[in-house]
Amino acid sequence: MGRFPREFMDVVEGIKSMRIRGAARIARAAVAALRDVGNSYEGSDVAGFINYIKEASKLLVATRPTAVSLPNGLRFVLNKLLTDYSLGVDSVGELRDRLVRYCDEFINISREAADKIAVFGARRIEDGDILLTHCNSSVAIGVIKRAFDEGKSIKVFVTETRPRFQGRLTAEALSSHGVETILIVDSAARYYMNDIDKVIVGADAIAANGAVVNKIGTSLIALAAHEARTSFMVAAETYKFSPDTLFGKLIKIEERSYEEIVSRDWLNKYPNINVKNPAFDVTPPEYIDLIITELGVVSPSMFPILIMERYGAIYSELEPWE
Amino acid sequence: MGRFPREFMDVVEGIKSMRIRGAARIARAAVAALRDVGNSYEGSDVAGFINYIKEASKLLVATRPTAVSLPNGLRFVLNKLLTDYSLGVDSVGELRDRLVRYCDEFINISREAADKIAVFGARRIEDGDILLTHCNSSVAIGVIKRAFDEGKSIKVFVTETRPRFQGRLTAEALSSHGVETILIVDSAARYYMNDIDKVIVGADAIAANGAVVNKIGTSLIALAAHEARTSFMVAAETYKFSPDTLFGKLIKIEERSYEEIVSRDWLNKYPNINVKNPAFDVTPPEYIDLIITELGVVSPSMFPILIMERYGAIYSELEPWE
Amino acid sequence: MGRFPREFMDVVEGIKSMRIRGAARIARAAVAALRDVGNSYEGSDVAGFINYIKEASKLLVATRPTAVSLPNGLRFVLNKLLTDYSLGVDSVGELRDRLVRYCDEFINISREAADKIAVFGARRIEDGDILLTHCNSSVAIGVIKRAFDEGKSIKVFVTETRPRFQGRLTAEALSSHGVETILIVDSAARYYMNDIDKVIVGADAIAANGAVVNKIGTSLIALAAHEARTSFMVAAETYKFSPDTLFGKLIKIEERSYEEIVSRDWLNKYPNINVKNPAFDVTPPEYIDLIITELGVVSPSMFPILIMERYGAIYSELEPWE
Amino acid sequence: MGRFPREFMDVVEGIKSMRIRGAARIARAAVAALRDVGNSYEGSDVAGFINYIKEASKLLVATRPTAVSLPNGLRFVLNKLLTDYSLGVDSVGELRDRLVRYCDEFINISREAADKIAVFGARRIEDGDILLTHCNSSVAIGVIKRAFDEGKSIKVFVTETRPRFQGRLTAEALSSHGVETILIVDSAARYYMNDIDKVIVGADAIAANGAVVNKIGTSLIALAAHEARTSFMVAAETYKFSPDTLFGKLIKIEERSYEEIVSRDWLNKYPNINVKNPAFDVTPPEYIDLIITELGVVSPSMFPILIMERYGAIYSELEPWE
Amino acid sequence: MGRFPREFMDVVEGIKSMRIRGAARIARAAVAALRDVGNSYEGSDVAGFINYIKEASKLLVATRPTAVSLPNGLRFVLNKLLTDYSLGVDSVGELRDRLVRYCDEFINISREAADKIAVFGARRIEDGDILLTHCNSSVAIGVIKRAFDEGKSIKVFVTETRPRFQGRLTAEALSSHGVETILIVDSAARYYMNDIDKVIVGADAIAANGAVVNKIGTSLIALAAHEARTSFMVAAETYKFSPDTLFGKLIKIEERSYEEIVSRDWLNKYPNINVKNPAFDVTPPEYIDLIITELGVVSPSMFPILIMERYGAIYSELEPWE
Amino acid sequence: MGRFPREFMDVVEGIKSMRIRGAARIARAAVAALRDVGNSYEGSDVAGFINYIKEASKLLVATRPTAVSLPNGLRFVLNKLLTDYSLGVDSVGELRDRLVRYCDEFINISREAADKIAVFGARRIEDGDILLTHCNSSVAIGVIKRAFDEGKSIKVFVTETRPRFQGRLTAEALSSHGVETILIVDSAARYYMNDIDKVIVGADAIAANGAVVNKIGTSLIALAAHEARTSFMVAAETYKFSPDTLFGKLIKIEERSYEEIVSRDWLNKYPNINVKNPAFDVTPPEYIDLIITELGVVSPSMFPILIMERYGAIYSELEPWE
Repeated sequence: MGRFPREFMDVVEGIKSMRIRGAARIARAAVAALRDVGNSYEGSDVAGFINYIKEASKLLVATRPTAVSLPNGLRFVLNKLLTDYSLGVDSVGELRDRLVRYCDEFINISREAADKIAVFGARRIEDGDILLTHCNSSVAIGVIKRAFDEGKSIKVFVTETRPRFQGRLTAEALSSHGVETILIVDSAARYYMNDIDKVIVGADAIAANGAVVNKIGTSLIALAAHEARTSFMVAAETYKFSPDTLFGKLIKIEERSYEEIVSRDWLNKYPNINVKNPAFDVTPPEYIDLIITELGVVSPSMFPILIMERYGAIYSELEPWE
Repeated sequence: MGRFPREFMDVVEGIKSMRIRGAARIARAAVAALRDVGNSYEGSDVAGFINYIKEASKLLVATRPTAVSLPNGLRFVLNKLLTDYSLGVDSVGELRDRLVRYCDEFINISREAADKIAVFGARRIEDGDILLTHCNSSVAIGVIKRAFDEGKSIKVFVTETRPRFQGRLTAEALSSHGVETILIVDSAARYYMNDIDKVIVGADAIAANGAVVNKIGTSLIALAAHEARTSFMVAAETYKFSPDTLFGKLIKIEERSYEEIVSRDWLNKYPNINVKNPAFDVTPPEYIDLIITELGVVSPSMFPILIMERYGAIYSELEPWE
Repeated sequence: MGRFPREFMDVVEGIKSMRIRGAARIARAAVAALRDVGNSYEGSDVAGFINYIKEASKLLVATRPTAVSLPNGLRFVLNKLLTDYSLGVDSVGELRDRLVRYCDEFINISREAADKIAVFGARRIEDGDILLTHCNSSVAIGVIKRAFDEGKSIKVFVTETRPRFQGRLTAEALSSHGVETILIVDSAARYYMNDIDKVIVGADAIAANGAVVNKIGTSLIALAAHEARTSFMVAAETYKFSPDTLFGKLIKIEERSYEEIVSRDWLNKYPNINVKNPAFDVTPPEYIDLIITELGVVSPSMFPILIMERYGAIYSELEPWE
Repeated sequence: MGRFPREFMDVVEGIKSMRIRGAARIARAAVAALRDVGNSYEGSDVAGFINYIKEASKLLVATRPTAVSLPNGLRFVLNKLLTDYSLGVDSVGELRDRLVRYCDEFINISREAADKIAVFGARRIEDGDILLTHCNSSVAIGVIKRAFDEGKSIKVFVTETRPRFQGRLTAEALSSHGVETILIVDSAARYYMNDIDKVIVGADAIAANGAVVNKIGTSLIALAAHEARTSFMVAAETYKFSPDTLFGKLIKIEERSYEEIVSRDWLNKYPNINVKNPAFDVTPPEYIDLIITELGVVSPSMFPILIMERYGAIYSELEPWE
Repeated sequence: MGRFPREFMDVVEGIKSMRIRGAARIARAAVAALRDVGNSYEGSDVAGFINYIKEASKLLVATRPTAVSLPNGLRFVLNKLLTDYSLGVDSVGELRDRLVRYCDEFINISREAADKIAVFGARRIEDGDILLTHCNSSVAIGVIKRAFDEGKSIKVFVTETRPRFQGRLTAEALSSHGVETILIVDSAARYYMNDIDKVIVGADAIAANGAVVNKIGTSLIALAAHEARTSFMVAAETYKFSPDTLFGKLIKIEERSYEEIVSRDWLNKYPNINVKNPAFDVTPPEYIDLIITELGVVSPSMFPILIMERYGAIYSELEPWE
Repeated sequence: MGRFPREFMDVVEGIKSMRIRGAARIARAAVAALRDVGNSYEGSDVAGFINYIKEASKLLVATRPTAVSLPNGLRFVLNKLLTDYSLGVDSVGELRDRLVRYCDEFINISREAADKIAVFGARRIEDGDILLTHCNSSVAIGVIKRAFDEGKSIKVFVTETRPRFQGRLTAEALSSHGVETILIVDSAARYYMNDIDKVIVGADAIAANGAVVNKIGTSLIALAAHEARTSFMVAAETYKFSPDTLFGKLIKIEERSYEEIVSRDWLNKYPNINVKNPAFDVTPPEYIDLIITELGVVSPSMFPILIMERYGAIYSELEPWE
């Protein structure tokens, strides 16, 4: 696959290594990368161009098996592009222009989605609320910042989020925005839960029954919130929906390297120790009070309906890059 | 307080800094330190000796506010010693000898307690069981090792236990013993809970209603075990009982330094970030199936009865070192 | 606002003071008042007429912040009227006639809705059932009366419903209809819950996630019903849906005067006593088995779908009277 | 009713006596019988033919009051046929041909539905899974067989399913297919539940709120699965939906003969003994994780939406055979 | 029964009519009345005196069937007196003196019990806590006042407690003591529960399994507290134990006059209305975190053990006044 | 083992084959058999006699591994006999007489225990109650009969209790006593649970944490009762306590022959079918409201305390027949 420019491969690497983090940012980064790689295509063979775009898409899709937003972003672009192609658009130049336009369109929708979610979510936060968030979700942070900007006095517990400590980034972002932030270890979530009014997290993927796939530990926090009658809210763009789950497919939970948890040297010393590092877990719909989307606030079981309502049709089982 | 020898102050420091870890080890270390510091007492004034012992005890008690085993060990020794003294034993030599004897007696009881708990606890583990343990409890590890030594094929999930990673020590101990061990981050407990047959943890203190104070995160794991109908067992010597709770006192949860979680430099950069580091949490009795003690296996609400049954009387509100 | 006739202001007062009670009755009274106030408009300036209607609507909307049926009724009428106006209908006479027609249309729909709900709800009641109802919901009473009229032998527990004792009105209505009725204090709901087969209540508003806002105490009864596996049913016209909640807005819970609970004289004697009098509470969807609407019987999470299915579109964020 | 041929009455009897078992098979058998009885109609009076078909349908509908698939199959056929008739098709020959075609169409849809469900459901089964099924559902068996055929190593607990021991048939079918099967009494379901990864059952009918009517004992198993966080899945064609429940009607639970449980002789000896033999029970939606349909995998509360989404309209209250 | 002096009958009436309220006050009032009525006995026949005391006791016992403290107080006194009598004490003068002494002894124990409970209970209340109490329990109020006197900043929600509004008395008592108090209707308990840290109530009787009989509505509040992980504490002297429950007897729930709820005139108008007015309900042990007694803080299931531990023996089935 | 008379071996066989059923009957039958076999001992060697008794006891103990009452009965007798022997009683004649006396004593205690339990348990049953019982427990039946004899109008659901249909025996016994009885399949328990006021069952063994081992299916019924807030009561003599569980031993669940479920011929036809037939399951203490014993009514966690309270000491780990 040496045929792609270094800039493109850098993005691929950046997503793989989690240097680029957050479902929305990943989706936009991938779509932007596809746009740029397509834009710099220099051949004149239409079929070759289409192939090139499909290959690039496949590479991007392979970086993070659980990040649904990424393939959904690519589906958005490719479905349109391939329709145009099948309807007879046959110059590389024209297709390249359209590719750029569709990619920009998706990036805009994605950016505006975050704003809308911030508006809707901030309305659920009341003056004096104590919140908790886990990991580093840009949409969840957006909701919190917006509530703060509206003059609400709030306080936010942030879990450090092992193994990669993304919670520290969240604490940094909130603190820099002026929000009073308390950093705790993940295990302390239940200890403080009775003082917490609302939990708000992001999502990596949402399944057909409204279950939410998010950073490992989310389901434990949701369970503790449910136990304490603390409201548990998920902020998620509608493109977090995993269409495969409608056809029974299980969302693959990415298993990441043990080196995020212990050093190679340490592990080598202990032949009977194995390290397991699932990056995500699944929060069942009964522990989720609301999902805040750019189209409105819904209960988890209603989430897939929203997709159908607004997009008119369910994604097909056949992927556009196949 | 410069009057105590360096060896004694080393133990005090070792307990404070968590170099000496595990409730049973702490209790034995403290009692051994009291024995040694008393044994090396060179004065001949009886009242001075008693005072010296009380002062040393106070220093030890102050090291770890939540570690009930430590004051219970000292109560065991001092109650006997002070009774002797009040009954007329009045030579420093004789009292010194008795102190040594009582200290050794407690240390033996404590060591045997761990063995008994291992025997009783191992009976609850069946061939093929998948276990989970949290933090680094010597009694819980004892139960697991014993079950393994009895030829049962077992597999143990161990949580790394932030912020101090004591779970790594547990993994090392089990691995060295030959037990198949899987290390995970604390947040992954619910992800694997459905595959786990039994959870076994230690205890730092047990309250009058059977609630268990243990390493932060324990109550989250217990909650997840309860949700999945996974048996949750606590291995604890009866001297883990907190007599104060009988009189309404709340068990003080030790708040440890933020530097266990983030660096001073990092924190200084963010004026709106606070770090909270509670060392323990409280698992309510309804999430605990059994407490395995050296006197037998009981339900949590029966635990305080056991104390009364066997020790004849409840500890008084007045402490012997006061 | 002295510009409106006394009859109109009487209705405004009647709704504010809770002389006019019950969500359906309030909606119909408000729409009828709008019809009458519009019908008696004597000016000839179209813009003035529209303004007059908007002002009257605002006054009506302001009477009861939680009563969603009232603004939904006005939305029904105004959306049509303003569409006509924007499409060019520009004589006061014609607009006045249309206003009257649209108002009557809503009143009819509302009345028929109650009948349909009675038919559907009565089918869920079986011979020999013991029911419980809270407060004074005309639709819930309609269901019970219909079941009785169908010859089913039933018995109904009615809570007195502090602070305003609307339960007594319910008891009077059922008793006068021949239904065997048992009046209890609100606190006795759990005491009798094990003997009760079905709970049926009305709703003041229904949120986007299927949560039901109803008279204070409803959520306690729902909780007790859930605990005892007693079916909990809500009878509600679809116009009880609160469209704002789709956009994240919280339903404002009306806080009513302390004088409904204690006298001014008593309260003045006690400087450290505050009285809180929220008129409603929120029953979460997981405690509600069914919502019986005029369009059919649905689960709470399906309720907002029903709106979309049948009305074609979600209400917009911009109100017609703004 | 002596007017129908013996072959037809044999099918009627076969369904009534439970010789023909399984909701899908019943529906197909009934539709096939209707086809054959219609096809052999020899008169030339169109109204007579229509009447004949309606009468035959009524007889078939009356065989099993809880089996929704049967009337749904007939609704599928009759709605089309009666539309044709009302649109002016008026020769017996033509109507007969269309009847045959519509019946075959339904039979094909039903057969393919089972295949689709097998594909979707098998994706939810993972290598190494231990399953449990109750009674004898052809769709549930289809899912299991498909997962086995895909090379997944699975093991299936099968309850014997009193009183008629249909679980033995399931065990026979799975065993003959090569699947490792463990037969247990119904009462042993909770004993083994902690070792079971997923429960999969069929459905006789699904109500408007997503509740599932299935063989007596299903709801107990669902409750035990919920208690143990074991996934509970229902495999059901969309035509298992009971449209009546949308209008408040309760699904009638068939009460079958006591002789399925004890002998007449035994019962005659004991005047104070009554035998109750309900054939089905109702599993509430909160105990069901997923419903696997031929259109996709949904949460129970979404099930009725699916019907509306795909069939465009809800069934009317008036039955085509009335 | 005209043989008893007016002062005695006044106390009997005062307890019956609930002018004398609160389990502790009732017990002390009854025992004081027995002391006074015995002290004023003027005959010289010993058997007559004993009979007179038994008759007086029976009258007192009959006033409030659920108030266990009252018979327990009388048992305390009579068991001692009758033992003396059976051991040969046979002068009226001597028995009279002993009666007075035993009665005073009980009254002192009861008063001191309240103080101890206040001390133990106040330790469970933390600075900043928001509390809720129901009805008018002098021990619960004692705990709250003590916590306030210790300088803790607290706020207390008080339910008005229909039908007799005893909550107003509680609010008056707390307010007069300087405690910030919020009065609400009983139905608002769940509305505020998420903001409440601890619920504390008294008890009228405690059963053998730790279930607590208290003012109607208590079990609903306990249920709501359990749902929200809010601590639920009962303050109760050990003599609230109902010994009969050990032998299977159910605690009789007093049914009080309908006139506490509605007027006679109102009720007469409605032939089909019945009013039910149970004075108490039963809170199951699983909703109670702690019982605070004068002997210490225990879990509910341990309560009967405490009795046995300290009193040495269980009360017999035969009552001393029989 | 041909050394024991045929009458003795008949009892051994009778217990093994479940011809002799019911924990109390088994215990009495075993003790009576020991008495008779000892009484007919004709040798004169004391050590031989003791050995003979131990051997006979071992045979009896081996018949039913889960039936705790049986070894408890033998422990009662042997502990006394062996104490006598160790204290010097050394004639076969004298020991034989004492054996007979101790055996009769146990049999009497056991018989009276059932009566006491009937008295205490009947008090928990109220006029109009609808009960449910599972399997064929003589103590549970005793409670029901007693309540009926006291004139209470009751109705009893009885599960048939697969695989051996012991529920039919219960139905026969209740019906013959005049009690209105409804026989259902085990799977119908949840279907009727909402109409049932109280469940009462017996116990085969009770563990140290109050868990109850009883006929397979009991825990499912307890779960369904818990779900519906239906009271779940266990009637059990104190000698049902399993002392081994105090020392961590798991109660062995007897696995009985597959032929109780299917025929050998049928099973031989299906190579991939296995049949599992556990005779008992374990009901956790949280689903049990009360245990009714001959010493009183207690909560499950209090059960082991009762043993210690009354018998003074816990059974030792070493069995008397070893």
